Amino acid sequence: MDKTQSRTKFLAVFPDLVDDLVAVTKQYGMPEDAIEWFKGSLNYNTPGGKLNRGLSVVDTYALLKGYKSLDDFSEEEYKKTAILGWCIELLQAYFLVADDMMDKSITRRGQPCWYRVEGVNEIAINDSFMLEGALYVLLKKYFREDSYYVNLLELFHDVTFQTELGQLLDLITAPEDSVDLSKFSLSKHSFIVIYKTAYYSFYLPVALAMYMAGVADDADLKQAHDVLIPLGEYFQIQDDYLDCFGKPEDIGKVGTDILDNKCSWVINTALQICTPEQRALLDENYGRKDAAKEAKCKQLFNELKIDQLYQEYEEKITTELRAKIAKVDESRGFKGQVLTAFLDKIYKRKK
Amino acid sequence: MDKTQSRTKFLAVFPDLVDDLVAVTKQYGMPEDAIEWFKGSLNYNTPGGKLNRGLSVVDTYALLKGYKSLDDFSEEEYKKTAILGWCIELLQAYFLVADDMMDKSITRRGQPCWYRVEGVNEIAINDSFMLEGALYVLLKKYFREDSYYVNLLELFHDVTFQTELGQLLDLITAPEDSVDLSKFSLSKHSFIVIYKTAYYSFYLPVALAMYMAGVADDADLKQAHDVLIPLGEYFQIQDDYLDCFGKPEDIGKVGTDILDNKCSWVINTALQICTPEQRALLDENYGRKDAAKEAKCKQLFNELKIDQLYQEYEEKITTELRAKIAKVDESRGFKGQVLTAFLDKIYKRKK
Repeated sequence: MDKTQSRTKFLAVFPDLVDDLVAVTKQYGMPEDAIEWFKGSLNYNTPGGKLNRGLSVVDTYALLKGYKSLDDFSEEEYKKTAILGWCIELLQAYFLVADDMMDKSITRRGQPCWYRVEGVNEIAINDSFMLEGALYVLLKKYFREDSYYVNLLELFHDVTFQTELGQLLDLITAPEDSVDLSKFSLSKHSFIVIYKTAYYSFYLPVALAMYMAGVADDADLKQAHDVLIPLGEYFQIQDDYLDCFGKPEDIGKVGTDILDNKCSWVINTALQICTPEQRALLDENYGRKDAAKEAKCKQLFNELKIDQLYQEYEEKITTELRAKIAKVDESRGFKGQVLTAFLDKIYKRKK
Repeated sequence: MDKTQSRTKFLAVFPDLVDDLVAVTKQYGMPEDAIEWFKGSLNYNTPGGKLNRGLSVVDTYALLKGYKSLDDFSEEEYKKTAILGWCIELLQAYFLVADDMMDKSITRRGQPCWYRVEGVNEIAINDSFMLEGALYVLLKKYFREDSYYVNLLELFHDVTFQTELGQLLDLITAPEDSVDLSKFSLSKHSFIVIYKTAYYSFYLPVALAMYMAGVADDADLKQAHDVLIPLGEYFQIQDDYLDCFGKPEDIGKVGTDILDNKCSWVINTALQICTPEQRALLDENYGRKDAAKEAKCKQLFNELKIDQLYQEYEEKITTELRAKIAKVDESRGFKGQVLTAFLDKIYKRKK
C-alpha cells in the first residue's frame, strides 16, 4: 500500500472525530470557550507525529483480511479501523503531554510542548486527562454494539496501566537531576522499555486489529504478544543504540541520552562489563549536562565495543524472532506476516 | 447504621485492595522500589478524606436491599460494595492529586499535597494516572464476570470525562492569577459545579449501588440522575455560600474564595444584580489576595443581601427536590428514600 496515500486517508478521519467529541460536549451544554479550548488541545496534540501506531492498526487489519489495497475496505470498515488507530494516537497524546511536563521538555514534533504554549501551563494536566477520556467517548460511540467492545475497553485499560508502570520505573530510576548509576540495571531497562513503550506501540495496534478482524482467540493474542513484546524491546534498544552511535544526518537529531542521564541500553550494557576504574569514570561523567563529560562516556563506550555488542544482540534477537514467526500457528486465521511486517520495518533501520 | 462502625469497616477493606494492586505489579515483574513507590502513593492519596462518596455506595446499596445493618450483608457482598466505593475514592484521588498541582495548593487533608512531598514533584502527574488506572484493575478483578461490568466501565468513563469538562471550564474561567469577571456567569457556574462535582460525588455512588443491587433500569437511573444532579449543584452552592457567610468555627476553615478569584455562586449572584458602580468595586477588589479588598467585597455582598437570596434559593430547591422525590416511581425497586438520605444530610448543614 502506498504510504503517502495511507497517511492522507488516515489523517482525513481525524476532523470527523473532533466533530464527534465536540458534539458530545455541546450536548452537555459546555460553554463555547471551553469547547474551543478542547478542540485546540485535540488538534495540537494528536496528529502531527509519525502516526506509526495508528497506521499499524489499518495495515495489520488489511493483512489479516487479505486486503491488497485500501480500496478493499468498505467505507464503514475503514473508518472503524482508523478510529481504533486514532484511539492509540489519543492515548499517546495523553502520555506525551504529561511526559513533556514531567521531563520539562521544550519542543515536541517541531512545535513547543503543549504546556509551554501561551496560557496553557498546568492546565495541560487536565488536557492530558481529556485526551485519554476522548478515546473512551469514541469507543462508546463506534463500538458499543460490537461483541468485542468490552475487550477493547480492557485492552486499553491494561495497556494504559502497563505504560504508566513503565513510566514510573523510568522516572524514579533515571531522574534528570540526580545521577545514581547504582539504580540502573539491564533488567530494569528491560522492564521500562517493555512496559513504557512495547505494549502500547507494538502489541496494542495489533491486538486492536485482531479484535476487529475477529481473529482474537486468546492463543492468537498470545502468539502476537510473544513476538511483539520482544520486538518492541528490540526497537527501543535499537533507539538507544542509535542515540549514541547513529549519525545525526541519519537519525535526524543529535542524541542526548548521555547528557540527560537516560537509563539506556548503552549505559546499562557498559555498566555490566566495565572495570571498577571505568565505572568510576562513568559515575563522574554520565548524565552531567557537559559536552566534555559526554565525550568521555562516548569514548569509553567505544573502548568497551558496545557497538559490536549491539550488532551481536541484533543478530541474535532477529534470528529468534524469525524462528518464532516461522512457527506461528495460522489455523485460526492469525498470520505470521503481520509480525514480519513489523520486523522488516525495524531490522537494521538507521533512523 | 453507626457512622464510626461504617467507616471502620469500610477502611478495613482498603489494605486488601492495595495488596491486589501490588500483586498485579509483581506479576508483571515490576522492581521492588517502583512497587514501594506505588504503594506509597495509594496509601498517601486515597484514604484520609471524609470518604463520603465511598460510604454512600454502601449506604445506598443497603437502602435498596432493605438492609437495616451492616450485618445483613454477606461478606462477599459487603466487599464488592465497598470496592465500588473505593473506586470512587481512587477516582477522586486521581483528580485531587492533579488539581492540587494545577492550583498550586499547599496542603490537602491536613498533610502536604502529594506533589510537595520530598522527591515527588512532577512524578505526581504519573502517580495521578496510576490512581485512575488502579480502579480499572480492581473492577476487572472483582466485577468482570458480572452482567453489569460493562455498565460500570462506561459509567466511570462518562463520569470521569464529565468531571474533566467541569474542571476545564473552571480552570479557564477563574484562573487564580488573572481576574476577569466578565468571564463569569451563573450559567457557567452551574456547568462547572454540576460537571466538576455533582456527577462523581452524587450521581456516581448511587448509580454504582443501583447496578450492584440490580435496580438499574434506564428509567431508574434517570430518576436518580434528575434529583442527584440538582442536589449536587445545591450542595456546591451551599459550599460557596458557607465559604463567604459561614462561621469559621462551624465550617472548620477560613473561606478564601474571594481572595482566590473563585467562580463561586456568591460572586455570580452579585454580578447579576449589582449596579455599574458596584460592579466597578468588584472588578477592582475581587480575587486580589488582599484582606482589605476582600473585606470590601464582603461588605458589598452584605449590602446586596446575598445571604437572603441564598436562603430563598435553599427553600426553593429543597421544596422542588422533595416534590420530585415524592413522585419517584418505585415499581421497579428503586427507592425515593435513597435520595431523601442525601437531601437530609445536606439541608441547612452548617459545615
